[in-house]
Amino acid sequence: MDSHGKTHQKEHDDDDVSPNPVTLSKYSNRVEIKTLLERSDLGARFSGKRVVIGGWVKSSRAVKKDLPPPPPPPVLAIPPPSSGGNQASTTANISCTEIIQSKMNIFRKLFDVLSGGGKTYPIFDKPELAGQKTAPPPEYILYLSVSDGSSVTSIQVVVDSAMSTVPPTQLMALGTCIVAEGVLRQPMAASAKHVIELEAEKLLHVGTVDPEKYPLSKKQLPLHLLRDFSHFRPRTTTVGSVTRVHSALTFASHTFLQYNGFQYVQVPVITTTGFGEMFRVTTLLGKTDDKEEKKHVKEKDGFSVDTVKAAIKEKTKLIDHLKRSDSNREAVVAAVHDLKKTSDLASQLEMKQKPKAATLIKPEKLDFSKDFFGCDTYLTVSGRFHLESYASALGKVYTFGPRFIADKIDNARHLAEMWNVEAEMAFSELDDAMDCADEFFKFLCKYLLENRHEDMKFISKRADKTIIMRLEATASNSLLRFSYTEAISLLQKATSRTFETKPEWGFALTEEHLSYLTDEIYKGPVIIHSHPKEVKPFYIRLNDDKNTVAAFDLVVPKVGVVITGSQNEERFEILDARIGESGYTTKEKYEWYLDLRRHGTVKHSGISLKMEHMLLFATGLPDIKDAIPFPRSWGKANN
Amino acid sequence: MDSHGKTHQKEHDDDDVSPNPVTLSKYSNRVEIKTLLERSDLGARFSGKRVVIGGWVKSSRAVKKDLPPPPPPPVLAIPPPSSGGNQASTTANISCTEIIQSKMNIFRKLFDVLSGGGKTYPIFDKPELAGQKTAPPPEYILYLSVSDGSSVTSIQVVVDSAMSTVPPTQLMALGTCIVAEGVLRQPMAASAKHVIELEAEKLLHVGTVDPEKYPLSKKQLPLHLLRDFSHFRPRTTTVGSVTRVHSALTFASHTFLQYNGFQYVQVPVITTTGFGEMFRVTTLLGKTDDKEEKKHVKEKDGFSVDTVKAAIKEKTKLIDHLKRSDSNREAVVAAVHDLKKTSDLASQLEMKQKPKAATLIKPEKLDFSKDFFGCDTYLTVSGRFHLESYASALGKVYTFGPRFIADKIDNARHLAEMWNVEAEMAFSELDDAMDCADEFFKFLCKYLLENRHEDMKFISKRADKTIIMRLEATASNSLLRFSYTEAISLLQKATSRTFETKPEWGFALTEEHLSYLTDEIYKGPVIIHSHPKEVKPFYIRLNDDKNTVAAFDLVVPKVGVVITGSQNEERFEILDARIGESGYTTKEKYEWYLDLRRHGTVKHSGISLKMEHMLLFATGLPDIKDAIPFPRSWGKANN
Repeated sequence: MDSHGKTHQKEHDDDDVSPNPVTLSKYSNRVEIKTLLERSDLGARFSGKRVVIGGWVKSSRAVKKDLPPPPPPPVLAIPPPSSGGNQASTTANISCTEIIQSKMNIFRKLFDVLSGGGKTYPIFDKPELAGQKTAPPPEYILYLSVSDGSSVTSIQVVVDSAMSTVPPTQLMALGTCIVAEGVLRQPMAASAKHVIELEAEKLLHVGTVDPEKYPLSKKQLPLHLLRDFSHFRPRTTTVGSVTRVHSALTFASHTFLQYNGFQYVQVPVITTTGFGEMFRVTTLLGKTDDKEEKKHVKEKDGFSVDTVKAAIKEKTKLIDHLKRSDSNREAVVAAVHDLKKTSDLASQLEMKQKPKAATLIKPEKLDFSKDFFGCDTYLTVSGRFHLESYASALGKVYTFGPRFIADKIDNARHLAEMWNVEAEMAFSELDDAMDCADEFFKFLCKYLLENRHEDMKFISKRADKTIIMRLEATASNSLLRFSYTEAISLLQKATSRTFETKPEWGFALTEEHLSYLTDEIYKGPVIIHSHPKEVKPFYIRLNDDKNTVAAFDLVVPKVGVVITGSQNEERFEILDARIGESGYTTKEKYEWYLDLRRHGTVKHSGISLKMEHMLLFATGLPDIKDAIPFPRSWGKANN
Repeated sequence: MDSHGKTHQKEHDDDDVSPNPVTLSKYSNRVEIKTLLERSDLGARFSGKRVVIGGWVKSSRAVKKDLPPPPPPPVLAIPPPSSGGNQASTTANISCTEIIQSKMNIFRKLFDVLSGGGKTYPIFDKPELAGQKTAPPPEYILYLSVSDGSSVTSIQVVVDSAMSTVPPTQLMALGTCIVAEGVLRQPMAASAKHVIELEAEKLLHVGTVDPEKYPLSKKQLPLHLLRDFSHFRPRTTTVGSVTRVHSALTFASHTFLQYNGFQYVQVPVITTTGFGEMFRVTTLLGKTDDKEEKKHVKEKDGFSVDTVKAAIKEKTKLIDHLKRSDSNREAVVAAVHDLKKTSDLASQLEMKQKPKAATLIKPEKLDFSKDFFGCDTYLTVSGRFHLESYASALGKVYTFGPRFIADKIDNARHLAEMWNVEAEMAFSELDDAMDCADEFFKFLCKYLLENRHEDMKFISKRADKTIIMRLEATASNSLLRFSYTEAISLLQKATSRTFETKPEWGFALTEEHLSYLTDEIYKGPVIIHSHPKEVKPFYIRLNDDKNTVAAFDLVVPKVGVVITGSQNEERFEILDARIGESGYTTKEKYEWYLDLRRHGTVKHSGISLKMEHMLLFATGLPDIKDAIPFPRSWGKANN
């Protein structure tokens, strides 16, 4: 925005004493689209107001300026099939809509866009534009649907092509950033679905895209390929909505815990203790010089990921062409099916490229007393040990931070870096922790229903139609609780059902078992508690039966475990013995943890909510890599 | 708590219909001390209520049960000097108070405790207790001051020693955890400072301490030695208060940003890009087997840290003895001075033990394409790059996460792991970012004044008497803003002042320069903006003068920079050229960052608040290692 735009806006705002003053976005001279449109009157009250709007073009249409209003165009008539594949793909930028988000009902959507929701503008015709560089360019009225990410809704910005030095095709391209000053008005066409639009008087900024390279103009990319463009995917409405839901879950977590008297405690990410596969943190290996960096392996088994991705690009173009050329629906379905197979191949190839035979240096050969911290350091797997120390002083504490697992697993439920909300309470037992998990979980569901209704509605259309109903059902009922032993008994009674792993007391419940209990038997979230001590970590409190421990899992349909919790062992002798049993050869690292039992020990329990899994439950997204902006998984760390 | 206690409490709670019902702590059957005492009537309304209280003993007194109320004891008369050093040190556990927190006014404090704030109980006499194992033990009324960390305030719990199987000395020891059920009542002594106390009827739990090993019973340990016991230090009132202030700052940050329309975005901790000294994340070196772990070097230059720490222990005992034996004040002051020298030596020794000559393996010899992620990965130094990507889609975004710097620096302002609140705003310029920093900073100050008044009052007594006044002044005024050029000119005019580094245009302002401007000239926080491009990173937007960039620092007295901010470069050609100038040999890693300028670029600006530095400003603590629970610094990663 130039300073002129800013001054103008501020002057206006000062004058805007009544009625219905426009709310400026904080720290900007623009107005957020959400504050205009997310109202009971859909913004009608603001008609006539002068505002600055900024955002990115989601779809666009153009009408030649001096044409009389023409009759509605035949729905799939333009561009004609004869105009060729190449042209079809560039023309796509002109009446482009973000089809990624509308895979499921592509035809209905396309109809809507082309028919302008009942309006009668002719669709912009590419060949005419192409000629503009030589002949005096014809002038157009451009209808740009612009989103600023403040909500699901876009606003229509009406721009006279004469006011821009940038060619109309560039203004109209998906992803172009525009900042426009103008006046809000009711749309000309009485049949328009929106209540207000912006009649631009000035373009304060245009950030163009290079449509050849901009990945989002490639249509119908499956979500997992969109992950290669993690820096652009928030511009899709789906990922935008998921991000706003993620943000709401984060704030709701802080709100719930602070409101209930928990103190936030900053636990460390770099740690000296932990279990299982861990990432080492070191400066002994130095930093790789930019020049020296190894190229990733590109080719395996004669195929390369790049080749397959090029094929995906071509096949996507073909589908696009088929759709716009009024081919029969079966042809399109077949092409989509073929594309899916190719993208699956791409995934498999990526899987094969994963690092396998790492030349492991024996750590014995290195002197970690000379490393940065003078000792072995790792990325934390859990913050609960450190929280216990603060709970044994402040009572109720919580934290929210990244947790790391270096397991070489790559599936839809696992990431190497995930974020947990962890809480710990002194003077509390297993039942208290289950109460806490139950209320926390329901609070999050309720918070989304009350504060992210528009986003949830949008996601439910795209990902899973049942999510809102599911959240409502969850928010209003206490969760069913039963023991591991009861769970095993239920599973063993399911004689009609064959499980890959036979349910047997003493062994961990598998994904399949949990799915049977939540998806089929109870059709909702449940809490399973009191597991055999062998399937849970050593620090969980031994029950009086000496066989089970005071642990629980809150399990939800489709996703699995969202919250784990436990009452941890407060009795010195038992904890000390269990560390011994667990095969830790030196207990030195656990001395500080044992100290908490030596001096002023107290019964205590805690929970750990896996934020990304909670988001999967809330949104119905099938893959955890879409539940975090920049996923880190085995063999992959983009950006 | 046993189930009996729980049932009892719940029954009572059901009966407790009016008036002034007691609020149970969530997820426990206890009542938090804060909810009883932090009220206008200091809890008087609850007199007569039955409750369960849990907490840790902060100080204690004992009175023989059948003694008539005796006259006030001579203030420093017991134990007599003749009872010897050893006995003095164990007796210390009997009338122990947390002297760590009251270094500054040790004598006044001791008087208060011994004289019972005007009450006339005789002080518990150690030799009598020692005899209890053979003779029938005498019975005592114990007065335990108990804290549960919910607030600064402790509650007095009155316990008849007959109700406990644990000897009175153990109940009374600093750090003992007790859970007691009883009735709230007004204290017997009319002169008592507190309005209600708990008359215990049942001890539901006692978690004893081993006074020989419990570090907090060692008195007057300087804060920096307390760091070796980071798992216990939150039990001191000072660290408890600091933690609650930290928690408030965290929640206030989320509240401010969410309220102003920012979406929380989860940026990654493991990253492929970054600048300066970074920590490598790898699985190539495996995990050290517990057995193989190298012991830290213990001895250097004939002294070992352990020897010196033993000396500190002895000297602390001596001081304690001198104080209680009514020695003259000069002797005590001299002993304290001597102790300080010894602890300084301990710090120096710890410094010498830092890892220096690391046997660096040339990274060229390792194949990082075989590492976990198939590429070089590091711990992130900043989240702003990733935030820019989301700001270019959602408008206003923020994050809160750990940031890592592997610089071999160990001072009072530097940690290897620090937590930043980072925010990024599309459609915003430098002025907007400065507005945001200004309002955010003031909001945090105001939030503490309104929500952590008791803690701030306590910390102000311990650390810095001016903090509340300073927060009030900051919260109510806009911060002064001036350019780097003006700052240099101001510094150059200070002819009476000799700076170690001569202030000269084009060079970074040093700590000394910033301190002169904020501590001496303006006596408060200021914003300094528009620095020479050479002293700021390449990605900050070049100003029209081509020499300066759109950066700013919010600088506060004593601490230095608390918020940095900038408008980052949105013009592709300029950013591309500046990456080149910066000497990055391969630009590949920055392609995704450049992509944001290739497609739909927009003006944008952001800020980064250093949470631990903010906490130093708010509390007046001198060292950042006390502003985070488990500090990670060069050569040190405890717990």
